[in-house]
Amino acid sequence: MNMITELRGIVFKIKSLKDFSFILIDCDHGLIQTVYSGKLPENLKEQSAVIIKGKFTKANIKDEFVSLKTEEFKIEEIRVLSTPSEVMPFDITKKELNINNDILFDFRALSLRHPKIKAIFKIQEGIVRSFREFLYEKGFTEIRTPKIVKSGAEGGANIFELNYFGEKAYLTQSPQFYKEFLAGVFQKVFEIGPVFRAEKHNTNRHINEYSSMDIEFGPILSFEEIMSLEEELLIYMMNFLKQHYQKELELLKVEMPIIHKIPRIKFEEAKKLLREKYQLNEEDDDLSPQEELKLCEYIKEKFQSEFVFVTHYPESKRPFYAMNSKSEFQMTESFDLLFRGVEITTGGQRIHQFQELIEKMTKRKMDPKNFEFFTNAHLYGIPPHGGFGMGLERLTQKLVGLSNVKEATMFPRDISRLTP
Amino acid sequence: MNMITELRGIVFKIKSLKDFSFILIDCDHGLIQTVYSGKLPENLKEQSAVIIKGKFTKANIKDEFVSLKTEEFKIEEIRVLSTPSEVMPFDITKKELNINNDILFDFRALSLRHPKIKAIFKIQEGIVRSFREFLYEKGFTEIRTPKIVKSGAEGGANIFELNYFGEKAYLTQSPQFYKEFLAGVFQKVFEIGPVFRAEKHNTNRHINEYSSMDIEFGPILSFEEIMSLEEELLIYMMNFLKQHYQKELELLKVEMPIIHKIPRIKFEEAKKLLREKYQLNEEDDDLSPQEELKLCEYIKEKFQSEFVFVTHYPESKRPFYAMNSKSEFQMTESFDLLFRGVEITTGGQRIHQFQELIEKMTKRKMDPKNFEFFTNAHLYGIPPHGGFGMGLERLTQKLVGLSNVKEATMFPRDISRLTP
Repeated sequence: MNMITELRGIVFKIKSLKDFSFILIDCDHGLIQTVYSGKLPENLKEQSAVIIKGKFTKANIKDEFVSLKTEEFKIEEIRVLSTPSEVMPFDITKKELNINNDILFDFRALSLRHPKIKAIFKIQEGIVRSFREFLYEKGFTEIRTPKIVKSGAEGGANIFELNYFGEKAYLTQSPQFYKEFLAGVFQKVFEIGPVFRAEKHNTNRHINEYSSMDIEFGPILSFEEIMSLEEELLIYMMNFLKQHYQKELELLKVEMPIIHKIPRIKFEEAKKLLREKYQLNEEDDDLSPQEELKLCEYIKEKFQSEFVFVTHYPESKRPFYAMNSKSEFQMTESFDLLFRGVEITTGGQRIHQFQELIEKMTKRKMDPKNFEFFTNAHLYGIPPHGGFGMGLERLTQKLVGLSNVKEATMFPRDISRLTP
Repeated sequence: MNMITELRGIVFKIKSLKDFSFILIDCDHGLIQTVYSGKLPENLKEQSAVIIKGKFTKANIKDEFVSLKTEEFKIEEIRVLSTPSEVMPFDITKKELNINNDILFDFRALSLRHPKIKAIFKIQEGIVRSFREFLYEKGFTEIRTPKIVKSGAEGGANIFELNYFGEKAYLTQSPQFYKEFLAGVFQKVFEIGPVFRAEKHNTNRHINEYSSMDIEFGPILSFEEIMSLEEELLIYMMNFLKQHYQKELELLKVEMPIIHKIPRIKFEEAKKLLREKYQLNEEDDDLSPQEELKLCEYIKEKFQSEFVFVTHYPESKRPFYAMNSKSEFQMTESFDLLFRGVEITTGGQRIHQFQELIEKMTKRKMDPKNFEFFTNAHLYGIPPHGGFGMGLERLTQKLVGLSNVKEATMFPRDISRLTP
């Protein structure tokens, strides 16, 4: 502890007293408090990059953002590497940033520097790290699927079109087709990648470009296995965060959900409950945002779980590749996972037999010819399989407790925002 | 070893003899040889998914693709979960697939099932895993930058345009602007994500959508530090592959490069050498593919290195944000990394001072107004920083020894290929 140490970092905050200054510096050790005696170099400003030489010494520090609470760093030598030309338009050294979302996102390169905003994205990093780590351990293969595609997996108009050397192409809405192919190759696969939805709503739950954490695997015996895997995955992820991102969780006062067995409720039962208990019946074949919220409240109270699987969604609301239920009439072997009032996952078992897939497409008046590149996999054999997609930003939002999913996105895209 | 085990998997190959059959099954243990006595179930075909019960027993197996060479699995019970409708158009159980690239990619969901093709993408997984693992250990933060952007980072016409709710937008050519922002936030950042280049060449080194492994960090004292980090990273990656992907490296007979200190040669010196030794002078301000190849041959012979850093590229060939060299007239603090004849990395130090950036843009007749979202970061302070981008598919291609970069892409996109 008494050795001369050299550190590089960025000056976060300067408090000058009569004969010395406290300087908070962001470096490999996190945000540390340093003490400098004498006159500060003229070109040393907040947001300057510096190299400092000196020693860590014992201290008692109360500052809001300082992570090492029992040490400070006595600077013996300081070298200024860069100096900002102007002072930031808002003060990122305050405990709370308190700026509106327009400014928050217009000046994103600056607002991200606030410790509480940085912490959101460290936690997001922890989510993707733990997701991958769990799946590698389970023998899953990481895949890379194309983002420019010839046809959307979800159908509908919510798709961005582009000109691909004179041909009509689209930005992928989901890696669905490709992850199914690859379940036929590697059996267990996952991908974390961008997906694009040209949705025109501007709500606190929508962004037009988001990160999808996708899983697909087989052979499976039932879609219950998919939910069990997700349950195990979420438990692993929460434990990983508590272990490796404690500092950020504390700074943001994150309430970590406790997960044991996640309750499973059939769609029809959920609808019945919402009708009878809350007089809610907003959409025939789906759950409305309000219904999702109420259902989560009910489950939390009754089962002490902040997660709930809603299973057996109606066939009419699921894509053509969803497997129909053997037991529930006109329902599918599918599920959504709700967390703190919002759907964060859609998943289910897919049709694996060629004939069944062609029949379902024909029933929907789709031309199987247009999907030959997809149905070929089924024709030549694909195991019974299923999987899910989890929205990274929504999970981050609900976990951290942010009111808008955009706050859980480094550079959000919405109908009126394309920069920075 | 004598316990009854239950396994799930996909039937890879069936060899039926008089009283029993050998069945190669792909499962969690890799490709294993199983033995089944008696008549096979009618619906059991190659590419069927199955559940088998039985025991592992000692055996000596010579089959090309079997990974467990001292064991086989005696099947006591077999359950068929799925049956393909048709036999594949080519035989994926042969030692070499030997089909042309059109068929290879048209039937990608099938050709990927060949063990030697699967192995390419397991190695690719190893590359991204080790890349991330190294950087996490070094304190880097994983970032997520938008793929739909308002302006390209590289300039030029090689950019895909799309209609974003009535506004002109583009697919990102590189996360350059964003990773620079985030070097101002987290100091050390990385991202592995898709980038898009609307290049019309159809060569063995180009694809229109590829995975870029991007790094950016600061504060740095010189661009030499960036090369040193990449050197250390590559050594880590190669060791990780040897440790965790030995089976795949062996199957593909991959010659692993030996890396100690990667030679560094200035661009001007490389050009001089190519002129004098090989009578090559194909491009004034750049290295041609032929020149890159020859330079690599020379370096390998002279320094026993399959990698070489070419440094100090001309200002004219580098983007506006590249930092000019203090020592070399009209050159930049930049580098390319060549590996086995091909450029796999472009990197360098960037301008961090606001005034310097504005001056360089003005000199290039760019309107700084259009880049305010970028230059704002410099205005309010950003540390001296730099980084690089490494093409995942090219690195995979050259490492494994494939003749075309498309073979190192799960679902390649080129000027004439948009499916599957």
